[in-house]
Amino acid sequence: MSTPAQPSSSPHPLPRIAITVGDAAGVGPELALRCVADSRVLQSCIPIVLGPAEVLTTIAGRLQLPLPATIGLDSLATADAACIVNCGDLLGNTVRAGQFSSQTGKASFLAVTTAIDAAMHHQIDAVVTGPIQKEAWHDAGIPYAGHTELLADRTGAGDHCMMLTSDMISCALVTIHIPLADVPGQLSREAVLRTIRLSADAARRKHRREPAIAVCGLNPHAGENGMFSHGEESDIIAPAIQQARKDGIQVVGPLPPDTAFTPAWRSKTDVYVCMYHDQGLIPLKALSFDDAVNVTLGLPIVRTSVDHGTAMDLAWQGKASEQSMLAAIKMATDLCGKS
Amino acid sequence: MSTPAQPSSSPHPLPRIAITVGDAAGVGPELALRCVADSRVLQSCIPIVLGPAEVLTTIAGRLQLPLPATIGLDSLATADAACIVNCGDLLGNTVRAGQFSSQTGKASFLAVTTAIDAAMHHQIDAVVTGPIQKEAWHDAGIPYAGHTELLADRTGAGDHCMMLTSDMISCALVTIHIPLADVPGQLSREAVLRTIRLSADAARRKHRREPAIAVCGLNPHAGENGMFSHGEESDIIAPAIQQARKDGIQVVGPLPPDTAFTPAWRSKTDVYVCMYHDQGLIPLKALSFDDAVNVTLGLPIVRTSVDHGTAMDLAWQGKASEQSMLAAIKMATDLCGKS
Repeated sequence: MSTPAQPSSSPHPLPRIAITVGDAAGVGPELALRCVADSRVLQSCIPIVLGPAEVLTTIAGRLQLPLPATIGLDSLATADAACIVNCGDLLGNTVRAGQFSSQTGKASFLAVTTAIDAAMHHQIDAVVTGPIQKEAWHDAGIPYAGHTELLADRTGAGDHCMMLTSDMISCALVTIHIPLADVPGQLSREAVLRTIRLSADAARRKHRREPAIAVCGLNPHAGENGMFSHGEESDIIAPAIQQARKDGIQVVGPLPPDTAFTPAWRSKTDVYVCMYHDQGLIPLKALSFDDAVNVTLGLPIVRTSVDHGTAMDLAWQGKASEQSMLAAIKMATDLCGKS
Repeated sequence: MSTPAQPSSSPHPLPRIAITVGDAAGVGPELALRCVADSRVLQSCIPIVLGPAEVLTTIAGRLQLPLPATIGLDSLATADAACIVNCGDLLGNTVRAGQFSSQTGKASFLAVTTAIDAAMHHQIDAVVTGPIQKEAWHDAGIPYAGHTELLADRTGAGDHCMMLTSDMISCALVTIHIPLADVPGQLSREAVLRTIRLSADAARRKHRREPAIAVCGLNPHAGENGMFSHGEESDIIAPAIQQARKDGIQVVGPLPPDTAFTPAWRSKTDVYVCMYHDQGLIPLKALSFDDAVNVTLGLPIVRTSVDHGTAMDLAWQGKASEQSMLAAIKMATDLCGKS
């Protein structure tokens, strides 16, 4: 069943938003199908689902979800209604719920590269990515740890970073998908300063005022004045903060990480700059599990993402919540500035 | 002004609880004075404040707080009413709010060692510690990073660990006050297993049933099956969990740290075993800032502590909340099993 066409004669045409389904064996396909049937989504954008059409057909049948029409890749730039673009040669009967493989990895990779290229060529206005299985990418020999690294490389982005954001809290990350042991060696004044600047830029656009940025230390108690630190606070983080202040950014830190996320600090902080993945994602997911969105800052294209994984154990059962994907589509729409 | 004497003829005499004030320049002294004037405290225990009496007198005068009588150290074992035992030769007019020094460090250290020794000699039933300034200990040449390390050493404890607990969440820590860069090298199967066992023991006593323990991974996504890991999950954490299961402990993990603290996981977890300080303290303080208590597991004495710092910027102003110290006193009283 196809969804109704969007009005194409509107003075502000709706943005065309590509939604990649992520790993076909996970919950991404059903979430994408549910989102493109949501009236709030259809009123604000033209959603284009990029993924294996046969698998989407199988899942739609199983969960009794509406299935948009499939269009050719060459029609992407002129799509004027919710639709599917077939990406990845996965046959419907070769993929099983929860069983990812190098094949599902290749297919999910192809959907993302297709979406990025279409955005770079202005055929679409934004990319919303569903959850990939990073291991499946790895098994398929794909040399990227995740979406963010691929996006940066393929769009030729210079300074970029990952920010997770919800109504409760926003966290931008200096390092992402690396072992914790490698984090201290990957920190630099430049990387911290870049993340502060990108966070301030994004928050300034969102709040339309000078935002308040809080930078976490790396170590317990932010190093307790060097006692529990190898100098990361004094030699790397504090100088980056000082430089950002000279640039006119309203920024505090390095804060002791454990007290940084208390209600008192949250109420006066627009974006936290976090040194490593879990420093930002632990408080974010403890406080806002369902509605957080992943935004890549510093790219030449608009890209948002769900903040959850493939949830293989829930796949194809209609149990997973589409709240994060709805929030990611809304944020992508907002960032396009067309609606 | 002295507080009323406790009834000494009760069939279950009230436990005698030493409260060390922590760094005299911080908020600890005023919190201790406020707690020992609290009727709930006085009904459940005999609180004995260990700290510099002159400074306590100064602060009580400034904040118009009741001041218990000062008794000699030799009367500690027979104290039957709220009182002060003078520890540390700090003169009232030489210490200023917010100005810690090696002198305040020495004094706070002396109060804690006095309390530990009294507990080891059964002169008191439990120790509740106020917040020290770790830097002041360092400046005074005291060779302990914090209370926990001192307690373990001075009581001759073998296996021990620090647990933070509140109504919302409990987290036991495998490593504590060390630079983040040193955490991976400090992890071992033995250390993880020890923390699981101590957590299970403590939670079993508290809940009077077999508790549910959740162990976090070290790395993002718990290493994503080795992709973002140097093997800490597979070689250290998972084998420790397997051994604990063989011992009959109900334990899951290694969990991806960022999703471990979501409401769904919290609702089925009694204690989280966390690999490093901020992995446990970030979610704990984001969720329960005011009422969390620090308990040292595995000691031959009962010891609890506030979970906050000295808050030098709020010192001697009557602004700091005594909720955490009240909770620490209540938990110490409960653990004594006398009330």
